[in-house]
Amino acid sequence: LRSNETAPMKQWETVAIVGVGLIGGSIGIDLLSRGLAKHVVGIGRRPESLLAAKQAGAVTQTTTSLEEGVAQAELVVVCTPVGQIADDICRTFRACPDHALITDAGSTKAAIVAEVEKLAPRARFVGSHPLAGGEKSGPTAAVPNLFENRTVVITPTEKTDAADEARIVEFWTSLGAKIVRMSPEEHDRAVAAISHLPHLTASALAEATSTEDLPLAARGWLDSTRIAAGDPGLWKQILMVNRTHVLTAIARYEKVLGSLKAALENADEAQLEQMLTDAKRKRDALGS
Amino acid sequence: LRSNETAPMKQWETVAIVGVGLIGGSIGIDLLSRGLAKHVVGIGRRPESLLAAKQAGAVTQTTTSLEEGVAQAELVVVCTPVGQIADDICRTFRACPDHALITDAGSTKAAIVAEVEKLAPRARFVGSHPLAGGEKSGPTAAVPNLFENRTVVITPTEKTDAADEARIVEFWTSLGAKIVRMSPEEHDRAVAAISHLPHLTASALAEATSTEDLPLAARGWLDSTRIAAGDPGLWKQILMVNRTHVLTAIARYEKVLGSLKAALENADEAQLEQMLTDAKRKRDALGS
Repeated sequence: LRSNETAPMKQWETVAIVGVGLIGGSIGIDLLSRGLAKHVVGIGRRPESLLAAKQAGAVTQTTTSLEEGVAQAELVVVCTPVGQIADDICRTFRACPDHALITDAGSTKAAIVAEVEKLAPRARFVGSHPLAGGEKSGPTAAVPNLFENRTVVITPTEKTDAADEARIVEFWTSLGAKIVRMSPEEHDRAVAAISHLPHLTASALAEATSTEDLPLAARGWLDSTRIAAGDPGLWKQILMVNRTHVLTAIARYEKVLGSLKAALENADEAQLEQMLTDAKRKRDALGS
Repeated sequence: LRSNETAPMKQWETVAIVGVGLIGGSIGIDLLSRGLAKHVVGIGRRPESLLAAKQAGAVTQTTTSLEEGVAQAELVVVCTPVGQIADDICRTFRACPDHALITDAGSTKAAIVAEVEKLAPRARFVGSHPLAGGEKSGPTAAVPNLFENRTVVITPTEKTDAADEARIVEFWTSLGAKIVRMSPEEHDRAVAAISHLPHLTASALAEATSTEDLPLAARGWLDSTRIAAGDPGLWKQILMVNRTHVLTAIARYEKVLGSLKAALENADEAQLEQMLTDAKRKRDALGS
């Protein structure tokens, strides 16, 4: 080997994806279109979703049996709703080859990681959360390059094997993602504030709007409420699983909104402008 | 004339625009690029903004003197910050030709209309509010076709001349806008809910976010906080002028958010999912 020869990208022989919606389907599309996997098995409950995933080029084979689907997999990515992920990981562990790596795409991590470490301590599992969701869901929402330049949080613990962690990092990196490493608890606290709270405030704003006023909705309302169009069933699970942290984030938000309201009630123009300026500074730091 | 011949689009000889920022500049660009006006006079306090507006093709002439700028105008569009609009309209009325029409682009209407009807009752004024703002401001934010398919609310009163109203409708329609007619009071109530409240909730969300969590901000946070990047000085004025209606809108919003919070505190999954579903239905009615 010449010294300047880079190692070829490892190609997975078989990857199984449990749940082929927006996230799972997009993973499959990239694995296949980038030549990162030879076979991608799509596992789901509904044959019509599996068919849609296959037609979208997200999977090469499909099955409604998790046990059959993971039997040959080197890597299993569990992309089901958060309330179901720990169960699906444990079932995967019992049915997959010993060497198989398991990760997930759940929006919460502490409960999932704790349950897996308790019920399937020998599973080669590394928790993941790709910050690439949106208001659309299902296999028809899957798109190529969804993870390009997006952040994926991985949540290894002291029980995680370093080599397993490295391979999960390599997996997400091969899809173009940037990796952030956090503890499961720190992850859940942070996403309560930056993801789950915005969902609730967007929903509250949409719901607080009178139907008669909707024809006047312009860019501000449309942007601010966009994620309220997300799947209520999925979001209910996320909010319930992470409710302690979400309640803390709501309390913090209510306090800030209360200060803005007080400035307005008191006609305190200087205070109002200062708060708007502080908020603008935080928003400007992120770009559009 | 043959009966099927449509009337040619009237070309204004001279339109004066007081305040050549996002709205005023975009109006000027359309007036000139669509051949709707021969001369567009840009009026502003800062020579550098006037120069930028001229370079953007938004105006043909510029002046820092409102009185000189409106002296030859058939139509004057006042696009200054809301706290200044009524004054600028009254000054315009004293300096413009008797036949000149005056409108504005203020985000609130009741106080402006009342003050103009009191201090300049003979002004040929029709209040307007183009729902085409954004988080950017200033003449460099001006773009062509900003008003295409956007809503412009006009707020005539019983004192408004019907012919003047028709010409203002024609003016905004020539820029591609859809017209909604409301009373000044009804306008202010509605925009408090659909525009001013979202600005406050976006600002509160941005401000409630810890700087350390910002690297995890994804699409939801970015969308929900985008308008918090708006100009704090302009927004402070809007919120102050419309504070009674805005406080009512905040109270309504806090109640809805409180219900979501209670459902979460009580772990009432059914109630939580129902509220998220109701919010989604309202959001889905509007498209992206």
